[in-house]
Amino acid sequence: MEAEIIATGDEIRTGALVDSNSAHIALALEAEGVTITRHHAVGDDGEVLAGLFREVSGRADLAVVTGGLGPTVDDRSAEAAALAGGVSLRMDNVALRSIEAFFEKRGREMSPSNRKQAMLPEGSRRMDNPVGTAPGFSMSISRCRFFYLPGVPSEMRRMLREQVLPEIRSLQGEDRPVHRVLTLSTFGLPESVVGDRLNDLPTRFPELQLGLRAHFPSIQVRLYASGRDEANLESTLKAASEWVARRLDPIRVVSFVGEDLETVVGRLLREQGATLAVAESCTGGEIAHRITNVPGSSDFFLLSAVTYANSAKTEWLGVAPETIEAFGAVSEQTAKAMAKGVRERTGADFGVSTSGIAGPTGGSEEKPVGTVCIGIASPDRIKGYRYVFPFGRRRMNKTIFAASALDLLRRELMKRNE
Amino acid sequence: MEAEIIATGDEIRTGALVDSNSAHIALALEAEGVTITRHHAVGDDGEVLAGLFREVSGRADLAVVTGGLGPTVDDRSAEAAALAGGVSLRMDNVALRSIEAFFEKRGREMSPSNRKQAMLPEGSRRMDNPVGTAPGFSMSISRCRFFYLPGVPSEMRRMLREQVLPEIRSLQGEDRPVHRVLTLSTFGLPESVVGDRLNDLPTRFPELQLGLRAHFPSIQVRLYASGRDEANLESTLKAASEWVARRLDPIRVVSFVGEDLETVVGRLLREQGATLAVAESCTGGEIAHRITNVPGSSDFFLLSAVTYANSAKTEWLGVAPETIEAFGAVSEQTAKAMAKGVRERTGADFGVSTSGIAGPTGGSEEKPVGTVCIGIASPDRIKGYRYVFPFGRRRMNKTIFAASALDLLRRELMKRNE
Repeated sequence: MEAEIIATGDEIRTGALVDSNSAHIALALEAEGVTITRHHAVGDDGEVLAGLFREVSGRADLAVVTGGLGPTVDDRSAEAAALAGGVSLRMDNVALRSIEAFFEKRGREMSPSNRKQAMLPEGSRRMDNPVGTAPGFSMSISRCRFFYLPGVPSEMRRMLREQVLPEIRSLQGEDRPVHRVLTLSTFGLPESVVGDRLNDLPTRFPELQLGLRAHFPSIQVRLYASGRDEANLESTLKAASEWVARRLDPIRVVSFVGEDLETVVGRLLREQGATLAVAESCTGGEIAHRITNVPGSSDFFLLSAVTYANSAKTEWLGVAPETIEAFGAVSEQTAKAMAKGVRERTGADFGVSTSGIAGPTGGSEEKPVGTVCIGIASPDRIKGYRYVFPFGRRRMNKTIFAASALDLLRRELMKRNE
Repeated sequence: MEAEIIATGDEIRTGALVDSNSAHIALALEAEGVTITRHHAVGDDGEVLAGLFREVSGRADLAVVTGGLGPTVDDRSAEAAALAGGVSLRMDNVALRSIEAFFEKRGREMSPSNRKQAMLPEGSRRMDNPVGTAPGFSMSISRCRFFYLPGVPSEMRRMLREQVLPEIRSLQGEDRPVHRVLTLSTFGLPESVVGDRLNDLPTRFPELQLGLRAHFPSIQVRLYASGRDEANLESTLKAASEWVARRLDPIRVVSFVGEDLETVVGRLLREQGATLAVAESCTGGEIAHRITNVPGSSDFFLLSAVTYANSAKTEWLGVAPETIEAFGAVSEQTAKAMAKGVRERTGADFGVSTSGIAGPTGGSEEKPVGTVCIGIASPDRIKGYRYVFPFGRRRMNKTIFAASALDLLRRELMKRNE
């Protein structure tokens, strides 16, 4: 089956907003064995929308449309779908009640314009929105099945997964091919090196497709398999993922199921019944923020002291002023003293610290912007590390500093598992 | 003039790569007074590309195409442009010499496939690529001027700025219209309420266009103006932005130039020569992370103590165990004691604290998931706040908790400015 993807909204048309929905939908549909042929983005003009829906309806089997289901006058997807399909809009009472319930549950007043969101094209099939007010719907225009979803990514993703993909599977019928995607998360190799090391994958595993996805600073390696013999697919993917890990160096593979660093670190800590405390300077809370994004992190995460000022490093972490004076705040010695200090003062099993220069200012000849020192204090040793990254931008530096610290902690935890 | 934007490449078509080039190009062209009517993305198929170029050439005045100029067989933009324009490819010797020079300068061997990059459509105008190997080109197909740029964002951006925009300006001639965009950042009102309160903007300011952009949990209000009288545009925008602020309640407007909460808080702290310390429980470092994203935050940000464990709250912040016992860790009383403790222990002028339940577990009848207590300690008072947010998801809760704390601090700082 062939599908086209349509993003709507003046914010996307004028470039005020980068459309990440279309890529997400394309990945999900391709994983179901649907071929994406084309993406479109247009603004909020009802006539333009209806014209595009008619154009696509004559070409594709499936179309997924995002945006234009909100409560404002700019939200015209339902109206345009009705126009393109030659039907009228009617009030969907189930949708209306669910919008009313959404507001009631939150103790908020429903605005009159929200009623409009329950007006759906005649003959369409309502898709409930469990996390927002805008219901979606699916309908056939000419030979093409259209799926209309809200533009808010969290709402779109959940409705795609729970309602659109199952309907597409049932449209594909019994003998649809089986598709499997396996995602390896890696850390520590640039995308070009990962690509070079895996460039003979197509000759070794001709039945697989390879995709690399950069989610800075991690590179995800995706292996796509399709066919009709499920057991065979699984064993090919397993063999290929082991081959990939050997090619990249197994320690670079953070997860064979696409998890991020903090999730893996959290699992290792929990498995070992260990606790963690963090002392952050240059990462400014990003390590704590990432770790506490993991549900249940209060089981192992005790504290992060985000000590920007040197006085905070000495008073809160017990770093000797002489250490900072002799080696500088950005030094392996200070990083080690910070990790040791936060570990001892909290009674945690592991202490992790960062001190570095995220920029844009503060660099020197000897310690340029991009320099980070990381300390890892474990029950039996304290180690210091120093790296210089070439990215130059403050946000990227903070992110790679935090990821590097999490990765060093992951490696330390894995050693103890051996 | 009307323009369409075309992104090419199988990575974009299949969703392996999010296309951010098109949004960048759209913003840049709209700022020049060009109206973007449509975006497209297609894969690497030469016939499909040529068909799309022909389609667009019959509709738009301008088209900007990214990708497909690389050295591999998958790079087919020049070939497809020639096909669509009914011309052949010819070797461009200037382009060839510049590719050769690129490799020489870097001491790298030029691969034979790089020669292909110098084959441009007959009658096209070469655009030099100062930062990569792929030259771009512009050419007319039917009534439309096409600009072909590399897909690598840094190369594309530079060539767009230095070569494409000047050519577009000269195509527009003397009397091209002036365009202005004004962005107000707001916090504390949902998008539907903002939309409702501003729904008569088109009748009051018919010469303006309104755009709302949700960047959770903030809503940006954009006012677009175009015309030939620059002074008139500016005064209309000023009047409209004041009208918007009155309609939304001026305190809800975080910035009249699109800044985020942490940037505004940082500026207010710097203006007042004041310092800040933070004690975070449920926000888990997100406040510190956001504040330290602001360059120069080390001037005013002393410390954040991310105290997840109750023992950390008592030992590190001096919260009385009796306070936690009597009122709970999630209480206005504990939040006030945390803010007071971190302020006093660091000597900061302002102390901010959060304690709440981000979920997914830990909620109760009395304190459901989504409850947050925030403390603000200033030189002359300590205030506690309590909110319950309905979002349910851990990441969203952390984000709105952190934003609420930053916004309360912003309001406190603004009071002192009065």
